[in-house]
Amino acid sequence: MASPQAAKDLAGFLRPYAEAVNAAIEKWLSDASVPAALAEAMRYASLDAGKRIRPALVMLSAEAVARPESWAAEPTPAAVAIELVHCYSLVHDDLPPMDDDALRRGRPSAHVKFGQAMAILAGSALLTRAFEVLSLGLADASIAAKLVAELAAAAGPAGMIAGQVADMGLCPVPDGAEGGKYIHLRKTGAMIRAAARMGGICAGADAKKLQALTGFGEKIGLAFQITDDLLDATQPTEMLGKTAGKDVRDRKRSYATELGIEPARRLAREVTDQALAALEGLGPRAAKLRDLAALLSRRNR
Amino acid sequence: MASPQAAKDLAGFLRPYAEAVNAAIEKWLSDASVPAALAEAMRYASLDAGKRIRPALVMLSAEAVARPESWAAEPTPAAVAIELVHCYSLVHDDLPPMDDDALRRGRPSAHVKFGQAMAILAGSALLTRAFEVLSLGLADASIAAKLVAELAAAAGPAGMIAGQVADMGLCPVPDGAEGGKYIHLRKTGAMIRAAARMGGICAGADAKKLQALTGFGEKIGLAFQITDDLLDATQPTEMLGKTAGKDVRDRKRSYATELGIEPARRLAREVTDQALAALEGLGPRAAKLRDLAALLSRRNR
Repeated sequence: MASPQAAKDLAGFLRPYAEAVNAAIEKWLSDASVPAALAEAMRYASLDAGKRIRPALVMLSAEAVARPESWAAEPTPAAVAIELVHCYSLVHDDLPPMDDDALRRGRPSAHVKFGQAMAILAGSALLTRAFEVLSLGLADASIAAKLVAELAAAAGPAGMIAGQVADMGLCPVPDGAEGGKYIHLRKTGAMIRAAARMGGICAGADAKKLQALTGFGEKIGLAFQITDDLLDATQPTEMLGKTAGKDVRDRKRSYATELGIEPARRLAREVTDQALAALEGLGPRAAKLRDLAALLSRRNR
Repeated sequence: MASPQAAKDLAGFLRPYAEAVNAAIEKWLSDASVPAALAEAMRYASLDAGKRIRPALVMLSAEAVARPESWAAEPTPAAVAIELVHCYSLVHDDLPPMDDDALRRGRPSAHVKFGQAMAILAGSALLTRAFEVLSLGLADASIAAKLVAELAAAAGPAGMIAGQVADMGLCPVPDGAEGGKYIHLRKTGAMIRAAARMGGICAGADAKKLQALTGFGEKIGLAFQITDDLLDATQPTEMLGKTAGKDVRDRKRSYATELGIEPARRLAREVTDQALAALEGLGPRAAKLRDLAALLSRRNR
């Protein structure tokens, strides 16, 4: 399924999108009204790190729908907003009362560097600013309102937060693979699905195209999580930039631990193929989304 | 300055607004997709408690601008959103790494009842849902986008979060009364100002009326904080429903401790008069906002 583009490595493929979103995050976080110590913690948690998969997915989904000159809205603010929310979730998830992880993206976690109080506040500040970016960054208010609804639903108590509640064992979850699916659809899946949809909304996708992007986002989110679980189980900490082997140690649900390594690898390939199939209606314009799917399935960190 | 309406007690005056916003919060938090344990923590933190001053201020500000039949948008979703954000801030502020307070509104704080992880998650869920309420609850997308911008600015890293960062001593703050003002303008002032403005925006206020509401919100927010500080210094815990005497014990900036009790009382009266003066241009339609100002200055909890 791989195109020539897919031969490049994932980081190289993502770089132009990462650079664009980093510059935009930099701009949105440059605000002299924010206390310097808080601004520093917000920047630490959101800049110069991370592959920027979700922002790239926003941009690529918009590109898959229409040429930039006919987009309903420029999608960069949507890409910034979804990444700020992702970064907030990492800061809060790493806190001692949550997953208690001291290492993130190869560096001390925010609470190790700045203390727990500042980490809680900087995380909430990133979440809040994400919605400010959507409300101020989009010229078309009806697109802005749709994006706010999309992001809030994906990040909120029926989405990402529900996933973390379930992952921490704070609510009952079905046994076995069903439980793992419940968690992952929410904890990582909801935001990846939202990234694809938000790109489509910015580009002015009709219902059919939005449906194709939704299906792609759902499947690619699932494939992403399976690969994440496989990497956690098989790669050393130095390679991941975060603590490896945590899933087994913390008895977390993981495709690698529930299914075994080889069946999980097989499932990741199947789901990636389903993601590619979802794009069929979008034609050649979705070539880069296909490349992303192929590269994500082969990533090693 | 007190009208006959002001003779009623504050709780009685606020009751119809509190009941309306409670019913609306109930509706917005009834969502079968939210895990039951998370929904319970969100409800605990946001229902059946609190005076609902901010939601009432949203509704009264809308009423002060125009008759309901000519409002640009029904303001209840804005009232719900601002209260959900206020409740999230209480949950997070009470956490052990923050103010470490076990008592809130006469009951165990959320982290005492549900544990720290759930309190962090339920708080963030209330914040996120607030933006969902604005994006889904307003038929007019341009009003919705304005309200999102207003709420995010007031609650975010240049507003309420900056106030908490400063209040916790996590950033440098000017000495003496200037420092107290810096904290309070952000920690409580920004959200009260936003409540008045959001009501005005819903009612379709022109620039002049929005300016009047902004001035009122700023002054009433300051008066509210001075009274809060006075109550903390002079009332017992049983009366407040939260731990009394904390400002002195925690060496927090407080108008009562910085100025002394009597000068602080005088300042509260002066600032309340300035709030009333800001309303002059709104005429008799703002009568209930005036009542609110008078009642707030005389509250005893």
